[in-house]
Formats: sequence, C-alpha cells, structure tokens
Amino acid sequence: MIQASVCTIGDEILIGQIVDTNSVYISRELNSLGVKVRDKISIGDNYGDISFYLNRAIEDSEIVIVTGGLGPTKDDITKKALADLTGCKSFYYSDLQLDIIKDICKRRGMELSPLNRDQALVPDNCTVLPNFKGTAPGMVFRLCKGKRKIWLFSLPGVPFEMEALIPDVSEVIKNECNIADIYHKTLVTYGMPESALAKFLEEWEDSLPSELKLAYLPNPLTGIRLRLSVYGEEAEYANTIIDKAASELKDLLGNKIYGVEKDTLDSVVSEYLRRNNKSLSIAESCTGGLISSLITSNAGASDIYIGGITTYDNLSKVSLLGVCKETIERYGAVSRECAIEMAEGVRKLFNSDYSIATTGIAGPSGGSEEKPVGTVWIACVGDGFSDSQKSIFSGDRTRNISRFAAEALNFLRLRLETELNHTL
Amino acid sequence: MIQASVCTIGDEILIGQIVDTNSVYISRELNSLGVKVRDKISIGDNYGDISFYLNRAIEDSEIVIVTGGLGPTKDDITKKALADLTGCKSFYYSDLQLDIIKDICKRRGMELSPLNRDQALVPDNCTVLPNFKGTAPGMVFRLCKGKRKIWLFSLPGVPFEMEALIPDVSEVIKNECNIADIYHKTLVTYGMPESALAKFLEEWEDSLPSELKLAYLPNPLTGIRLRLSVYGEEAEYANTIIDKAASELKDLLGNKIYGVEKDTLDSVVSEYLRRNNKSLSIAESCTGGLISSLITSNAGASDIYIGGITTYDNLSKVSLLGVCKETIERYGAVSRECAIEMAEGVRKLFNSDYSIATTGIAGPSGGSEEKPVGTVWIACVGDGFSDSQKSIFSGDRTRNISRFAAEALNFLRLRLETELNHTL
Repeated sequence: MIQASVCTIGDEILIGQIVDTNSVYISRELNSLGVKVRDKISIGDNYGDISFYLNRAIEDSEIVIVTGGLGPTKDDITKKALADLTGCKSFYYSDLQLDIIKDICKRRGMELSPLNRDQALVPDNCTVLPNFKGTAPGMVFRLCKGKRKIWLFSLPGVPFEMEALIPDVSEVIKNECNIADIYHKTLVTYGMPESALAKFLEEWEDSLPSELKLAYLPNPLTGIRLRLSVYGEEAEYANTIIDKAASELKDLLGNKIYGVEKDTLDSVVSEYLRRNNKSLSIAESCTGGLISSLITSNAGASDIYIGGITTYDNLSKVSLLGVCKETIERYGAVSRECAIEMAEGVRKLFNSDYSIATTGIAGPSGGSEEKPVGTVWIACVGDGFSDSQKSIFSGDRTRNISRFAAEALNFLRLRLETELNHTL
Repeated sequence: MIQASVCTIGDEILIGQIVDTNSVYISRELNSLGVKVRDKISIGDNYGDISFYLNRAIEDSEIVIVTGGLGPTKDDITKKALADLTGCKSFYYSDLQLDIIKDICKRRGMELSPLNRDQALVPDNCTVLPNFKGTAPGMVFRLCKGKRKIWLFSLPGVPFEMEALIPDVSEVIKNECNIADIYHKTLVTYGMPESALAKFLEEWEDSLPSELKLAYLPNPLTGIRLRLSVYGEEAEYANTIIDKAASELKDLLGNKIYGVEKDTLDSVVSEYLRRNNKSLSIAESCTGGLISSLITSNAGASDIYIGGITTYDNLSKVSLLGVCKETIERYGAVSRECAIEMAEGVRKLFNSDYSIATTGIAGPSGGSEEKPVGTVWIACVGDGFSDSQKSIFSGDRTRNISRFAAEALNFLRLRLETELNHTL
C-alpha cells in the first residue's frame, strides 16, 4: 500500500496556539484515495528541522505533503529547504500567482508590498498549483531516489486555501501513483460508550474474515464511528464482505446506528426534515445556542430550520417561551416540566412542525446533590406528542455542553425515525 | 533550553476522523513551563512505529509525552512498546486504578469486563498517575541514556482525562527538570490581516533587542495574537524589555489590541459587561447561534447574558423581533435597516442593556452581485445609540460564519470600550 507522510510547519502549532486541522483534512483525503498515512509530523519554522524531517519522510513515503511555513511574515525557510532538498538552484516569479496577489491586494485596498510580491517566487523545478484564495502558491516536486519515485507537495497553511488545492493534489496522486484499491464503509453510532460497544461486538468481531478491519472512532459530538475497511482485494470480494458485515452490524445495533460515512447527528436530522418537508425550532438554555449553530452549519439549513431561542435566565423562559412561573417555582428550571414547556413554547412561537428544548447544568457551578453538574433535561415536541428525557454526564463545562447538544439531537433523531417511518 | 517531543497514538488521527487537540493542549502547557516542543508526531496503533518513534524521541528530547493507544478496544500495543523500551519485564494491577475502574463501571450500571479490568495493568517500572475520570491510568517512566535523564509520560487519549493529569505532569517537570526561565506576554489583536500587521510593525520589530522574539499567531475567531518571549535571561531584565515592547505595541496598535494571553473576543466582551453590571441579548440570522454559543461557553455567562434569538427565516424576524415587513421588502433581510431593527427588537424582548444582531449570506448559495456571499450587516444597540456596519469576507460557509461572529463581537467590544470608558 502506498504510504504518505504529512508534515505541518509552524511555530504556532508547536506552542499550541492553533489546532492543526490541516493534517486532519489531508489525512482524510489521502485515506479515501487509498493512501495510508504513515505518520504526521509538526515542526517549527526552522531550516534544520524541516530538512531533517523531509529527508526522512522521502526515505519512507512515496507521497509527502507539507503545509505551512509560507506566510508573508515567515522567512523563506520552507522554500529554501524544499529547493535544497530537491536540488534546485534558482527561483522565478510565477506570473499567474503574482497576478492573483496583485488582485488580492487591490481588492483589500492595499499596496503590493515586497513581502507579498515575493510569495510568488518559486523554485524552478516545481510545478505551481496556483492559489486563487490567497497569496502563497502550492508547489509540486517530483523526486527520484534510485528506482523510487516520490511526489512532494507544498501547500499554504491557511486551511481554506490549502483545502482549495486538494483536488489538484488528488488528481496528481490518482494519475501518477500506483494506488492499491481500498474499500471503506463507515457506520455511525450513538448511545453506547466505546468499551460497552467493544464488549458487545467482541464475539462478532472475532468472526470477521481477516482481510476486514474494524476501527472504533469516538467523538463526543457525533458518537462512535465504526469503520470497516479492506485493502488491496478484488472489488467484488471486498464489497461483498464489507456489505455483509455492515448488514450484520445493523442487525446487532439497530437504531444505535444513525448514519454512514460523514453523517453527523445534525446533518441526519436536517436530512430527515428536508426529505419530509418538515420544519424545526429550538429552545436552548444550557446549550446556549450550540444546537442551533450545529443545525445551521449545514448548507441549506433555511429549508428546514425556522429559528431558535436561547433563554439563559428564568424570566425570559417565562416571558418569551411561555413557561409557567409556577412550573419553575415548583420543579425548578432544570426539570421535565420546564423542558416540555420550553419546547411547546418555541414550537408555537416559530410555528414549526417539531421542536426541541434543553435545560441543564453545564457547570462548573450551579449543581446540587439532587441535580448535579452534568444534568440535562431534553424535550422533543411535535403534533400530538411531547417526549422528554433526563441524562447525566460527567465532563467539564465544554464537554458537557457538547454532550447535551448531541443527546438532544439524538433524541430528536430517534423520534423522527419513528414519526417518519425511517429505516436506514 | 529543555526540549520535548509529543507523540499522539491512534489510527483515528491518521485517517483524519478526529482532530488532535491533545497535542495542542500539551504543547501550550509545556510552552508555559519554558519547555520547547521540538516536534509533534502522530502515529498508528502499531508496535513497530511506536517503538521506532519513541526510540528516536528519547534520543532527541529530555521530555517525551505520549497520549492515546490505551483504550479498552486497543490491543495493549502501547503498554507493550513502553515496557520493552524501558526494559520492564513484568506488569501488575494498580489497585487504585482498579478501584476507580470498578467505581466507573458501577456508576454506569455495567459489569466489570476483563477488557476494563486490564486497563489497570501497568509495567512495574512506572509510577502510576491515577486517572479519576476514566479507566486508563497515566504512567511516568524515568530513563537514563548515558548521562542524560529522560522523563517519559504516557497519558490516556480521551482529552478531558488527559487534561486532568496535566497538573501531575507539570509538577514532575517543574521539580525534576532543569528548566530555563521563560517569559511570555501575549497581546491579542483584531482588525488587521497578518501581512498588513507585519508590514505595519516591520520597522519597530527591527528595533527590538535580539533576545526578544515576536511571533504572529492568527486565528479566524479571535484575531492575531502577538506573542513576545524571552528565554533564559534574568527575570528583571526579561520583564523590563517585554513590558517596554508591550507598551510600545499598545501605542502603535491602539484599540486593535483587545486583550492579553488567553483572552478571546467573547471572554473580553463578557468581562466588560460583568464589571459594569450590564446585560446582553443577541439576535442572529446568518451566524445561526454561534455568537450565543461563544458567549455561553464562558463559565458564569448567566451573570451577563439574558438570551438570544436565531431567526433563520424572514417571517420570524418580523413576528418575533418586530422587524417591519416593509423594511425587508424595501431593503432586503441583509441590510443595515434590518440589522438595526433586529438588534432593537431583541433588546426590547429580553430587556437587556445592550444587544447585537447579524444578518448576512454565509453561502454557498444565496449571494447576488449586489450582496455577494460573505456579506454581513452587524448592528449594536444600547441606551441612546444604534450602530451598524457592513463587512464582506471571502471564505467558505464555515469560515464565513466564524468571521461574521468574530466581527460582531469585535464591533460590540469597540462600542463597550467607548461606552464604559475602558482602557486596556
């Protein structure tokens, strides 16, 4: 199987000021092409380290992808290291990239600075991948080490600029590298922690053919992904054993499986609503707008989402959502009764088909013995029904808020599956 | 300067299913202790790769921190690799960790499985860092390579479990390693892109003493952080040159600087409101709840935040927020007039001191020549004023939503600084 190394350059990654999402994006893309990512390395803007690691990467991997180290405030260390590594002696200005840079400066009402101009300067042995979204161009180098051919890509560090160049990178890899076939299927589950799921599936896993691999990929916002993969087998055979295993998993896990591949709870819920021409509104307390934010992160959200209300104090739960004052006095704001009245209130206000509501204690303070930090009441209301559920989680504030949101979306998902007679 | 290598283990990182936030957290912590992170490596659950990289890491670095590879569904590959690397022959059950595991199973209503029990099994040459939040314990190994002493830490991969063990790790490093003094000060800016900021500061930067380093750390949600650092100098001298530079930066950049260290736009705005006993409400359209979610991510948000409304369709802008139908017909929903009426409406509904509103086009569709994708109108309303502003960004949907939210928070921040006579 063809192996790749991914190298992200930048002091900001090493000092922990930013999260390295670039290598995640690249790994996912390589994986779907059937390229195995052997390692991912983050290093500083430092000639010695860049040279050292790139030299090692081209020893081990047929594909090396470098991001970052090309910004206008960086010294041209990365370009120098790449030029030296690939035996290039001279640089030239890429006309196309220079035009793009001029255009960007013009649109931003800025003069063309020498710093910006020099971003179009590239080693003369590379092929330029023009970056239409930013100033630093992508570069492709082809190296030979004895009989081995290596493709080395250098991409800008700004995520959306890098992402825009990935189709070009994929084209080169697909056309030039001898990729072994890979077959994947991912089923997405919610509702069982990893260890319980592993125990539950242990016996079944042991019965799988050895060519079929199962991976557990947990995430607090989306649940655990179960990824089935087969490398380097015949397409028909690979698909047959993957499909059989996927179908067995569905039988074993039932509605704990909610989607496939990149599905998330918010995308699946949105899709159910869209397909049935139904609409949603959301009342949030403890989740503070996160569920609304997740639903609207999907393109086309306006087709199914009417709106939401975050009522962070009790008064607005009463005045805006129409929760009875007595309900809060008698049961407290974190209660089944309050959650249901919130969901009913927001549904009426926005005149939506369905609504969900959350009210809970994310922490760090606000908990009691009876209602500890991590407690959440969730309600889901539609024509002729109003469901509710209590859950208790034990994370910090950020994690609790995420888990509350995921739990609420899953609660709605389960209800919609029944309501709309859905089967995966 | 003491150097560290951070190694995250897990196929889920290499195939790009999860973002590696652990190494970010650890890097930040090491950095603040005065330890330089030399490299960060992600590798798979594979004995050969783990051994290879750990062997290399202990050659280069005095501190090696490994996370992950310890889950109940993983084979005990990481523990085996650590035991072999450190010359350990036997394992034992950590009584304390076993008690914690039993307790967790009991609380979750699960039986103690052999998979879970074996998570308490540790090499007999390590010191256990008990993990009270999960089943896999942390481990500390002390190695000697000739005269070099190396500290090797193995931590669980679940972020909040790993984070809970970091104070223990820091204690060991502070007590056992000979850390050179490090002095940092970070100023957080908003409103100038990196290249413009760099050009603006170029001359000043050249005038800095050579011991003082300036780093640019950009982030779409918070702006660009300017980090000043001095390594290994006398405290008094280091602090003097850092304070002088920080004060010069404040003079140069004025209210483009909004905070220090870990401040974010949402935390700074929250703090202004808290200090002045003022309250906020938010009306969101294109940002879909993200601003509300950011504000409520801060502990104690209920002191200053009353609530918010996401009106994703025009009808609810009219019926809920009281935007005039004629305003939308005449100017469109993405307009100064609509933004102001949204902010006025939400302020009245929640009876807050201040309010902000966003209405824009995040994309991918919905743009026009006059109002392209990336256009946002922001309004900020308070006693006796209603301000508004148009901005145009050019990212994808996700990035545009983030930039809209940041721009709105900054717009409010600038207004609050004037209103409340704030000086940094």
